Amino acid sequence: MNSLESSNQPAFQRGVDGLLVAIAQDASTKSVLMVAWMNAEAFQETIETGFATYYSRSRKRLWRKGEESGHRQQVVDVFLDCDQDTILLSVNQTGAACHEGYASCFFRKYEEGTLKVIAERLVDPKDVY
Amino acid sequence: MNSLESSNQPAFQRGVDGLLVAIAQDASTKSVLMVAWMNAEAFQETIETGFATYYSRSRKRLWRKGEESGHRQQVVDVFLDCDQDTILLSVNQTGAACHEGYASCFFRKYEEGTLKVIAERLVDPKDVY
Repeated sequence: MNSLESSNQPAFQRGVDGLLVAIAQDASTKSVLMVAWMNAEAFQETIETGFATYYSRSRKRLWRKGEESGHRQQVVDVFLDCDQDTILLSVNQTGAACHEGYASCFFRKYEEGTLKVIAERLVDPKDVY
Repeated sequence: MNSLESSNQPAFQRGVDGLLVAIAQDASTKSVLMVAWMNAEAFQETIETGFATYYSRSRKRLWRKGEESGHRQQVVDVFLDCDQDTILLSVNQTGAACHEGYASCFFRKYEEGTLKVIAERLVDPKDVY
């Protein structure tokens, strides 16, 4: 067992600026909802509260998902990848994961060099933010 | 329409070292298989060949997924997120996505501070690499 495998925690020390990629996947539909970043503190808060908390690189602070919009993510399961440097959250999403009002941030499909919107908005962003 | 929205391409210039996060999701099971990185060249090759090509940060070169193992990923659909800085591939996976022989790299569940293996190996890594 090497030193990596001997730790049961995400390897935040291996991320850039101590940040690791975190994916939120809908527990029911299995749709990939969004990708964000976590530091050790965000991960700890996610585990302790049972709701997804990320680290906002633009705002340089913890980002309690849904703290403004109410569109929180209740965490059902937490997975780590083989290298322990990516986090996968299985979540129950309230409202829309995407700040543009779509269920998932991945609402555009790339086809022959163009982007095509493939989903309907769940909510109008103006009503939320 | 701002300059970001006017582009139909992933915003590689906004990634660290020109790299963006790329997620591979199984087209059938919707399981998240792995997370890797792409630069513009890897993305272009993925689109042109129809098979996932990433950029290996450790080897500092293009990584044609499955080039050694044969465990290639045929790309079914390509999605971009709202910020156009994350790529989601829907793929048909041959063999195991994970170099440790599991179908998905996310084969460990985090529970009460410990990691629990929740999947069976599909293949023995020694037989592949």
